[in-house]
Amino acid sequence: MNTRADTALLPELRLKRGEDRRLSAGHLWVFSNEVDTARTPLQDIEPGTICRILSDRDKFLGYAYVNPHTLICARILSRNPAHLPGKSLLVHRLQVAQSLRRSLYERPFYRLVFGESDALPGLVLDRFGDIVVGQAATAGMEALRPQIEAAVRQVIDPAAMLWKNDMGVRELEGLPAYVETAFGEVPQHIEVPEGGVDFHVSLQGGQKTGWFFDQAMNRLALRKYVGGARVLDVFSYLGAWGLGAARAGATEVTCVDSSAAALEALQETAIANAIKPTVIRGDAFQVLENLHAERRRFDVVVIDPPAFIKRRKDIPKGTAAYKRLNQLALQLLERDGILVSCSCSWHLEPDHLMGAVQRASRHLNRFTQIIEVRGQAPDHPLHPAIAESRYLKAYFCRSVQD
Amino acid sequence: MNTRADTALLPELRLKRGEDRRLSAGHLWVFSNEVDTARTPLQDIEPGTICRILSDRDKFLGYAYVNPHTLICARILSRNPAHLPGKSLLVHRLQVAQSLRRSLYERPFYRLVFGESDALPGLVLDRFGDIVVGQAATAGMEALRPQIEAAVRQVIDPAAMLWKNDMGVRELEGLPAYVETAFGEVPQHIEVPEGGVDFHVSLQGGQKTGWFFDQAMNRLALRKYVGGARVLDVFSYLGAWGLGAARAGATEVTCVDSSAAALEALQETAIANAIKPTVIRGDAFQVLENLHAERRRFDVVVIDPPAFIKRRKDIPKGTAAYKRLNQLALQLLERDGILVSCSCSWHLEPDHLMGAVQRASRHLNRFTQIIEVRGQAPDHPLHPAIAESRYLKAYFCRSVQD
Repeated sequence: MNTRADTALLPELRLKRGEDRRLSAGHLWVFSNEVDTARTPLQDIEPGTICRILSDRDKFLGYAYVNPHTLICARILSRNPAHLPGKSLLVHRLQVAQSLRRSLYERPFYRLVFGESDALPGLVLDRFGDIVVGQAATAGMEALRPQIEAAVRQVIDPAAMLWKNDMGVRELEGLPAYVETAFGEVPQHIEVPEGGVDFHVSLQGGQKTGWFFDQAMNRLALRKYVGGARVLDVFSYLGAWGLGAARAGATEVTCVDSSAAALEALQETAIANAIKPTVIRGDAFQVLENLHAERRRFDVVVIDPPAFIKRRKDIPKGTAAYKRLNQLALQLLERDGILVSCSCSWHLEPDHLMGAVQRASRHLNRFTQIIEVRGQAPDHPLHPAIAESRYLKAYFCRSVQD
Repeated sequence: MNTRADTALLPELRLKRGEDRRLSAGHLWVFSNEVDTARTPLQDIEPGTICRILSDRDKFLGYAYVNPHTLICARILSRNPAHLPGKSLLVHRLQVAQSLRRSLYERPFYRLVFGESDALPGLVLDRFGDIVVGQAATAGMEALRPQIEAAVRQVIDPAAMLWKNDMGVRELEGLPAYVETAFGEVPQHIEVPEGGVDFHVSLQGGQKTGWFFDQAMNRLALRKYVGGARVLDVFSYLGAWGLGAARAGATEVTCVDSSAAALEALQETAIANAIKPTVIRGDAFQVLENLHAERRRFDVVVIDPPAFIKRRKDIPKGTAAYKRLNQLALQLLERDGILVSCSCSWHLEPDHLMGAVQRASRHLNRFTQIIEVRGQAPDHPLHPAIAESRYLKAYFCRSVQD
């Protein structure tokens, strides 16, 4: 690893008295108001610099990368004084992450690194066979790019790697948005196999890293409910829920999305896999209202919307939107039908989503049983000390006549 | 159904002003302090009587059975004025419940009715092939026994039915504890198939209804983690976790329980299924300490204890016990090992169990990822308005070196 001399050269960040408590309890973040800036001025530190974090009593708390311009001014990369962040630590972390996924997934299609939960704050790596797609959300991870690429080559040795660094959060870190090949040749489209369907996915042009692995297990769990069913997939994106349901025995599948590009890719997948969905392009709320006006009914309705609540201040408006959406979905359900109600808004409490379903169903004089309470797939582990690491909710609800 | 004349003869229970709100929101319980006893005295009503529940403004809220001697003095059986509780309502409820389970389970081994969540408050029915085991927790359900038996015959037509009415909660309802055959012949032992193992189960002499279906999906979910692993199953009861893990490829299985009868049945299952577990009889805490003293290590440890918190006042002591237990389990784990940490105490908040795991792992200088957040199987649906219907927590945790 590294010699004592190396680490002694690192800048230090000293916390105020008592502010080491959260880190000691396992959290990885330091907020800027917790730093004793009189003794260790934050402003002198270059964004992305690795520092030694110390308590007010000089106790070593860990190595962290620092960004003086953000509310979370430092994130711990290592608590072990012998393990200085760098390529060899990254290789170790990737190996630990990879061994979990390898034991769980038959094929190498999964989230390989889920940031804080894999002890690599701010970094996401998704694996699509021999292509790796990375997202660095922070100046610290941006600065580690060369070492990350070297570690990925050593542990995974993929044919190509893409940085899909076009997320809005990077702006807060003072980072530009870009999509860039790290090495190898990244094809325009790839095929992602799931549940017997090969999905046509654009890595450069898609949402996030191109595919939502977090819902994979939930989509597979839905299979047992769709035999012989009419399925409505709202906010379908590439049709992962709907086309998967068709493969699992649904007799009729309708996919709704507002994106022409997504629906085009969905159609390509459908043709290549001999599935014949009905595709409706439009605003989900409007489409659901139209289907209701047409007296259409479905046995299974999936609503898997983008995050309606991105910031705390959006909570009231967002919660109302979830409630409205669930009500529109419930009224299209056949008796004893299944509603899959999802939210990826961290700010929406699980109980509030359940409450939205409950109120909507009482409004329609129905009784709703919650049959399965599901969350993100195991390639998106939770960090038990970091509430934000648990964001995905997926309730399988059965609506019966009251 | 029934004529208006029939229902007009039913006693009425009138709520105080505003006390209809919880029922209107979907809840099924009336608390005794919510009744306007000046207008409708509770004390005159025989325990188990079906009443009409009315708001202070004479709005019909539902039919409920009543027990004037309990805190929850009434539970709604039907909100529809045309559906008076009786055999035909029970047949309908059983059909709705059965159709869900039939679509989810390959074989008829499951909880057929889960009380409030299947709109039959106070009633549990477990199905073991052609045997049905019932538990009536309330005077209202006790009074409906003949109709329940008739409905079970009509919908399921099992060879035999057993009432396993020996639960402590019946005492609060003024009901005796008994185990009694309702009809047919109930064998001393039956075989319960799960995950490729046929488990030897005593219906009359076992815990609860004899088998814990609520954990079935969690036990099956563990299979992917146990290939080649040394597995420790603490509070094993009949060995459902441990013997199932052996069948799924675990190389070594150790089962710990304090009950000689349970371990005897476990051994019979092991022999009949050609599995060779190590069996330790003793207090779980003591056994875990001994194993630690012997420097034993396991790749997977399952702790699935009985409820440590039965009443609110047990919360501090119970929470401390969960924490201690998780710490004892974690220190037996091999690096990157899996801890399955369960609690069936409704009073233990999910986050508090996660907190117990997190504090225990920090104490041992480990980092724990939560890979799967699991709950009760879909034959134990949640009632979204009744928090108590969600009681089971099962966290799959991976403990890595920090």
